[in-house]
Amino acid sequence: MKILEIDLTTGKQKETTIPEEEFRNYLGGSGLAARIFKQRDYGKVSPLSEEAPLLIFTGLLTGYNIPTACKASFCGKSPATGIWAEATVGGYWPAAFKTSGYDGLIITGKAEQPVYIYFSNGKFAIKDATGLWGEDSYSTLEKLQSEHGEKTKVAAIGPAGENEVLISAIMIDGLDARAAGRCGMGALMGSKNLKAIAVTKSDNLPPLYDKEGLAEARKKVLPTIREKAKGLSDFGTAGGVPVVEKLGDLPIRNWTGGSWPEGASLVSGQAMAEKFFEKHYACYACPIRCGKEMKVPIGPYSGTVSHGPEYETIAGFGAMCLNEDPAYIIAANDLCNRMGIDTMSGSSVIAFAMELYEHDLIPEGLLGDIKPEWGNGEAILTLIRQIAYRGGLGEYLARGVKRAAKEFGPLAEEFAVESKGLEVAYHDPRAFTSMAIIYATGNRGACHLEGLTYFNENRAFPASLVGLKDDYEPHGTDDKALLAKTMQDFMVLFNALGLCKFLIRGHVVPANIAEWVSAVTGWDFNEKEMLTAGERIFNLKRTINVGLGVSRKDDTLPPRLLVHDRQEGAAAGSLPHLGKMLFEYYKLRGWSTEGIPLPETLERLGLD
Amino acid sequence: MKILEIDLTTGKQKETTIPEEEFRNYLGGSGLAARIFKQRDYGKVSPLSEEAPLLIFTGLLTGYNIPTACKASFCGKSPATGIWAEATVGGYWPAAFKTSGYDGLIITGKAEQPVYIYFSNGKFAIKDATGLWGEDSYSTLEKLQSEHGEKTKVAAIGPAGENEVLISAIMIDGLDARAAGRCGMGALMGSKNLKAIAVTKSDNLPPLYDKEGLAEARKKVLPTIREKAKGLSDFGTAGGVPVVEKLGDLPIRNWTGGSWPEGASLVSGQAMAEKFFEKHYACYACPIRCGKEMKVPIGPYSGTVSHGPEYETIAGFGAMCLNEDPAYIIAANDLCNRMGIDTMSGSSVIAFAMELYEHDLIPEGLLGDIKPEWGNGEAILTLIRQIAYRGGLGEYLARGVKRAAKEFGPLAEEFAVESKGLEVAYHDPRAFTSMAIIYATGNRGACHLEGLTYFNENRAFPASLVGLKDDYEPHGTDDKALLAKTMQDFMVLFNALGLCKFLIRGHVVPANIAEWVSAVTGWDFNEKEMLTAGERIFNLKRTINVGLGVSRKDDTLPPRLLVHDRQEGAAAGSLPHLGKMLFEYYKLRGWSTEGIPLPETLERLGLD
Repeated sequence: MKILEIDLTTGKQKETTIPEEEFRNYLGGSGLAARIFKQRDYGKVSPLSEEAPLLIFTGLLTGYNIPTACKASFCGKSPATGIWAEATVGGYWPAAFKTSGYDGLIITGKAEQPVYIYFSNGKFAIKDATGLWGEDSYSTLEKLQSEHGEKTKVAAIGPAGENEVLISAIMIDGLDARAAGRCGMGALMGSKNLKAIAVTKSDNLPPLYDKEGLAEARKKVLPTIREKAKGLSDFGTAGGVPVVEKLGDLPIRNWTGGSWPEGASLVSGQAMAEKFFEKHYACYACPIRCGKEMKVPIGPYSGTVSHGPEYETIAGFGAMCLNEDPAYIIAANDLCNRMGIDTMSGSSVIAFAMELYEHDLIPEGLLGDIKPEWGNGEAILTLIRQIAYRGGLGEYLARGVKRAAKEFGPLAEEFAVESKGLEVAYHDPRAFTSMAIIYATGNRGACHLEGLTYFNENRAFPASLVGLKDDYEPHGTDDKALLAKTMQDFMVLFNALGLCKFLIRGHVVPANIAEWVSAVTGWDFNEKEMLTAGERIFNLKRTINVGLGVSRKDDTLPPRLLVHDRQEGAAAGSLPHLGKMLFEYYKLRGWSTEGIPLPETLERLGLD
Repeated sequence: MKILEIDLTTGKQKETTIPEEEFRNYLGGSGLAARIFKQRDYGKVSPLSEEAPLLIFTGLLTGYNIPTACKASFCGKSPATGIWAEATVGGYWPAAFKTSGYDGLIITGKAEQPVYIYFSNGKFAIKDATGLWGEDSYSTLEKLQSEHGEKTKVAAIGPAGENEVLISAIMIDGLDARAAGRCGMGALMGSKNLKAIAVTKSDNLPPLYDKEGLAEARKKVLPTIREKAKGLSDFGTAGGVPVVEKLGDLPIRNWTGGSWPEGASLVSGQAMAEKFFEKHYACYACPIRCGKEMKVPIGPYSGTVSHGPEYETIAGFGAMCLNEDPAYIIAANDLCNRMGIDTMSGSSVIAFAMELYEHDLIPEGLLGDIKPEWGNGEAILTLIRQIAYRGGLGEYLARGVKRAAKEFGPLAEEFAVESKGLEVAYHDPRAFTSMAIIYATGNRGACHLEGLTYFNENRAFPASLVGLKDDYEPHGTDDKALLAKTMQDFMVLFNALGLCKFLIRGHVVPANIAEWVSAVTGWDFNEKEMLTAGERIFNLKRTINVGLGVSRKDDTLPPRLLVHDRQEGAAAGSLPHLGKMLFEYYKLRGWSTEGIPLPETLERLGLD
């Protein structure tokens, strides 16, 4: 079990063997990356400096025949938020990378000219990428595959990452786009003049301990996954749009709206599938296959086939922007993927711009011909391009809503819906108040994936499956702290193990996963040890952030989510009582009332 | 009805007559001052620049034989908070100033040498104060009285104001100290090289319309005031300490403590009176006489007689600092008064320093010999002096907790308990949640006097006296928004009329006050017109702040009050649900969800 380090400034390379005990404690993926980040005190570097590291770690289970074991994490210090960053992604690249002989890759320095790194047959090389620089993520894949063959998988940045756009992503698998989307990791990669990491998959997957045991364990869960997650298989996450709207959970009009039933049905996955569906797509080893390819119906790429928009993208370029035309959502999604822009932060910052425009806060000179009115699909496409190339208004929007807001007067800050600098994901904490804790305490900022507790509150993943009660009052405060903590400690494991969090939609429980870990590693690994590892990793990331100045004062939400009642729809009348839930949460976590892990908590978890 | 303007740079003077209609709409005091501040767009100036104005306005009723009609307001842009500032004060100076022939005084510019302004017999002069510069507020009064006679009343700054300490006050009446305490008005005065404003009282009180009617109206209320406010008469506000502690309303240990019954009884007004009482003291025209003179028992001024500490001062130098020795509280109060430091912000910033010290966040070099441990009375006295002269640690503390926190690392911000830059007053919004709205929306920051709704919640002033229900769940959220709005619109009138807010402890109601206004002015003034004027003035100040960038994002409280449960005592388990209350409050106010007064609201109130 070893990692590779490459300094792009000097070309220096180094292999380090990581003791098995470290894997047992931090598992791999973003867990092990955080461990190394902390040990080396990488927090002190400036995120876009040469010294800044990009840590790319596959999960402990990635690449094996385990449901959804397809993930890798891109980690470091976020250029967008200034705190711990991770972006975990599936597709086929991570499993291919797992055959490179390395569990992780740490890239520092900055190449003089654009380069890419190419792995094949246990070797690697730093190669010239001047011919790729400027290409979008789809054509980057095409060009590298035509050079190295079809079995070559690629993680690449688009123009946005090249231009150090703070909401840029690292893109995987070309048109079947999967994105390491959040925290501006594209900019971090771009700042190193690193265009892509290409891997030609080999048969060199590290051997596992108990192949039969693993097959057995896998067989046990597959039928339930297929049954319970059928909705995801049929329409992808996009299928959830109408239900989410009905629950008052869909953010509308930059979080000011209350209900949008007609819009939600017009842009739902079902409606899109009817008109634009081409075929299903699954990540490596995934029985759910939530990906959909769709025909792009509008814009300069009209007629091409591309990855269909997922729930968050529809929420963003649909409801958030009051855009009812799915054609523009598909085109916006496609354009973001090509440019390498996170669709969540990208749509947030465009909805933010629409609200600025409504309040006449954008200077004429910056607008040019653009009229970013609510629902204007053409304006959305133009702004995406401006963001990628930092032109016009895009220069400001490229910084994310928190930084952009500083440029348009004090009222603009009211429209910037973020926490710790990360645009809030698209499940409303007013609909399911446990999400207020998840967003406020998320180690990478306001990320829904750090807890996914709306799945518990709406019973898609009953909390009794993790030993809690099932009933929660969606708008209440009782027991939300324990729910949030428990799910965070569980969810953090997925990014360390290389699994997709949608497994919980298939009712996979900690005991199932512990079996897989035991079968792969030969450890006598049980549920309890695993959940303790989850708690350890969550606290480790917190201590990284504490070192960067994070405490209770940062564990908050923007006033729009704490003060602005939706007034219509199922969440009308609900505002999360964040203070009360947080106080309880800190206690459960063994943190001080200021949100700092107590010495005894760190000691119990073996963190010091 | 006229105001005087003096430019201390040029010596230029100007008299302006204010139309009666302006008085009827804005009444006087800080109401009329805000009107002129807004009209002249004074918000754009830097608070300590030559252009910055200091507006000093007596109330419409000040100086007449009306209970507590003793007040003047010092207004401007706060050097501490950067927003609207007012500090209203009683004593004898305001009533004396009322005989100067002016209702208000606007001072701009900066004198080349220290000066004071002297009013007598309808004349005034700018006089040399080089011999007064450096004197404390007591000796400034003494020197000016020996020059101009015993009938001379003085508003002066101490060394703190001279040194532009951002928590400095303007002091009135020497040892019978009354303070225009909050918002750093001492620094604003000091920045003009203006040491004092002295007035020899004349008989030139403007005639009133209906002397007999006024006498009648006065007689009606006096017995109730005397009966209901007897506690204040006996022990001053200091008498409330044990009750306030019992209600969970007393801030303890920089707002982290829950209960402190022994301490509260040791430092109560009753306990102090027993040992140190000298005599009662009343402001002009006040039947309550809450002031107490006490012997200073300790420190360099030991043995002298001085104004006894009031409730907020005891809460600050007692409970907030965990100091159980009343001797040090009396000495700290006396020293703050001499130096011209606001005892509320002064004690806040010292409690803050004690918490920094506990967490080892103060560099050795700044500490010198001082050990600001909890309860260390000597450290309190040393720090007050350092603040006044901006020496050592005092250089930072002199800036108030918000700015000071920036100097001691990110965790320090957790210990800075302020809103809009003003240290939170000493009634806990966790004990009476309506106070969360009062603090969050206070036009000068986290001031209790803007609403005083704990008096409604604890029934000292039943809300039915202003037409509301009497019953409030202290820790709940229901009906708090209406209570807060109603009381703000009522309380804002006192600073415009020149009355003391303790009248409500004597159950004086709006109808009583409207009678007084009618008798003095001859207007047919009723309760409704008066309360509308209150709403107008409150909104006017809000629009001034909106112009300075204030909106919903600023209407908040520090995490210590929103997240930190007191855990012990009567407020254990209570945290204000500020978001829910604020949303309702904005609606009642006719403000947007972002906290901006709507055009129709401004129009209804005649503000545009």
